Amino acid sequence: MLTTRVTERLGIRYPIIQAGMAGGTTTPELVAAVSEAGGLGTLGAGYMSANRIREAIREIRERTDRPFAVNLFIPEPFEEDRERIEQAQKRLDRFRREMCLPASPDPGKYREPFEEQISAVLEERVPVFSFTFGVLPSEWVKRLKRQGTVLIGTATTVEEGAVLEESGVDMVVAQGSEAGGHRGTFSGSVEKGLVGLMSLVPQMADRVRIPVIAAGGIMDGRGLAATLMLGAEGVQMGTAFLTCRESGANSVYRDAVRNARDDGTVLTRSFSGRYARGLRNRFVSEMGKYEEEWPDYPIQNALTRDIRREAARRGNPDLMSLWAGQSASLSRSLPAAELIRNVVREAQDRLKEKR
Amino acid sequence: MLTTRVTERLGIRYPIIQAGMAGGTTTPELVAAVSEAGGLGTLGAGYMSANRIREAIREIRERTDRPFAVNLFIPEPFEEDRERIEQAQKRLDRFRREMCLPASPDPGKYREPFEEQISAVLEERVPVFSFTFGVLPSEWVKRLKRQGTVLIGTATTVEEGAVLEESGVDMVVAQGSEAGGHRGTFSGSVEKGLVGLMSLVPQMADRVRIPVIAAGGIMDGRGLAATLMLGAEGVQMGTAFLTCRESGANSVYRDAVRNARDDGTVLTRSFSGRYARGLRNRFVSEMGKYEEEWPDYPIQNALTRDIRREAARRGNPDLMSLWAGQSASLSRSLPAAELIRNVVREAQDRLKEKR
Repeated sequence: MLTTRVTERLGIRYPIIQAGMAGGTTTPELVAAVSEAGGLGTLGAGYMSANRIREAIREIRERTDRPFAVNLFIPEPFEEDRERIEQAQKRLDRFRREMCLPASPDPGKYREPFEEQISAVLEERVPVFSFTFGVLPSEWVKRLKRQGTVLIGTATTVEEGAVLEESGVDMVVAQGSEAGGHRGTFSGSVEKGLVGLMSLVPQMADRVRIPVIAAGGIMDGRGLAATLMLGAEGVQMGTAFLTCRESGANSVYRDAVRNARDDGTVLTRSFSGRYARGLRNRFVSEMGKYEEEWPDYPIQNALTRDIRREAARRGNPDLMSLWAGQSASLSRSLPAAELIRNVVREAQDRLKEKR
Repeated sequence: MLTTRVTERLGIRYPIIQAGMAGGTTTPELVAAVSEAGGLGTLGAGYMSANRIREAIREIRERTDRPFAVNLFIPEPFEEDRERIEQAQKRLDRFRREMCLPASPDPGKYREPFEEQISAVLEERVPVFSFTFGVLPSEWVKRLKRQGTVLIGTATTVEEGAVLEESGVDMVVAQGSEAGGHRGTFSGSVEKGLVGLMSLVPQMADRVRIPVIAAGGIMDGRGLAATLMLGAEGVQMGTAFLTCRESGANSVYRDAVRNARDDGTVLTRSFSGRYARGLRNRFVSEMGKYEEEWPDYPIQNALTRDIRREAARRGNPDLMSLWAGQSASLSRSLPAAELIRNVVREAQDRLKEKR
């Protein structure tokens, strides 16, 4: 009943992919637990150095022989605007003062070099490579496919899906406007890419020949069954796995997600310079008026790092980035294997009930 | 397979409701054709006088004995800001000049009196009354229910759904962010109420005991089957019926909808003073920068009326309000009865295939 081109091509039992949430949520324990339970675990490696990626891959492999994925961010050009950076630092200093952090610190390097990150993925012969924020350069498409790595791109519009198919990926994630975390939009404004999953999946499935994986707001068997009806051949779930026992999310983050409301999220670029969906908190409320004035991604991400880390250390959800989708209230605190079993059972029950 | 509390309570064969699109789209022919085919047709009477409502109801009844609905807008308080009105008129005059219309005309009355409109619904003993933009005053809830009229409210968040249930409605439409036309949001900002259907339906179904009707982006059997999986007990489709043979939409509007893209819509209050989703055109592009400065609904709606009418008369889609949802590209030009038959067959096929 749940066998699709996605399960067949990836060599997994259930069409359930755990999203590659960056920032420490996707521990090797979580990735391996998802894969062991018949889904596809994903290491969210966007902010990891090549060495840390290699290390995490080894830890995953110690725990499972099953397929898993690594997820990276395609780098985009950005402008290093000194004036914007200085002004951003000044605005952020109020939070640093509150937490007794040094004012306007040197942010260090803005991002890990992509070539080093993806070289680690290639050398480690990772079974599945997924990415977001753009199109993978054709050189890497060729090298990864030559060694048998399955490629999954991320699209927020039908047009982006068609561009990704043309680039040679094997599958495409359709990221609906409901999704938590960073928007994958890479062509046009963030507003243009805010298409609800109910609209995005059938239109994408009609346009591309490769399998479509639905992402955004899917938390249980209802969402899995619904997206299969729309023409998706699998789901990618982030927020649902964030509250799993094996995830690296800390307890204040988990609590905030569990207590969320459907209308409790907001799109903001105040944390990273790139639009992402998270729970409304004090940081977002107070910084929201500067949305258009922050430096580009990933500069702003580097500038806010010390604040987010210290807030997390102190267990203060007011100044953390609480990425979450619009269905966060449906999250459950279970071991990942149990979540997958429940989702599968719920989907099968729904489908049987209505046949 | 498609029998739900919605079909049972409304006395219809299929859980398919044609949305009450105001502005002339929902002709008595369309309403009656939908009801005759086993769905629920709805007269979009928001801008109609009590006399026109009575007349249209009679025309519907000449064509069908089956249940149908009338839809109205709950009036909200608005501010008559002379300065804003004058500025708006000046900004709109450029389009009037282009079409040789008189500059800054007297807009006439801003809206039809609600008490007169709903009195017509009561007196005509309409089988189903649906509404949007708020909560129906309890006096009218009582009077309509006493005579057996089924009440359907519209919610864009779980909270709004709970408020409507508490007010005594029999069913609630969950309007996802994908939906075309006016946002039904009545508590909080329009942004807060932009919840994707994939998130809104299951959370709403968990919260309220009354049946949930899914609306937004549903165009075919895939959408019907998907929303049933999510816990909805029926669908409301607007854009899908707009291109039906019996609809009152003119040919330029139909063509624009059929040629739409998933990322081709925009939320704007430039036409009416209230946020609504429609296709991006010249009017929206040029007026978009004044979004925050227009007078309140329904004043702005009255101010733009002459422009929209003349543009429609001339067959100029650049200056018309082209309300449409994010799935507009999936629209089909069929008689309403054939659309309903197709949607039902597609949904049944999908559900059988995956059992």
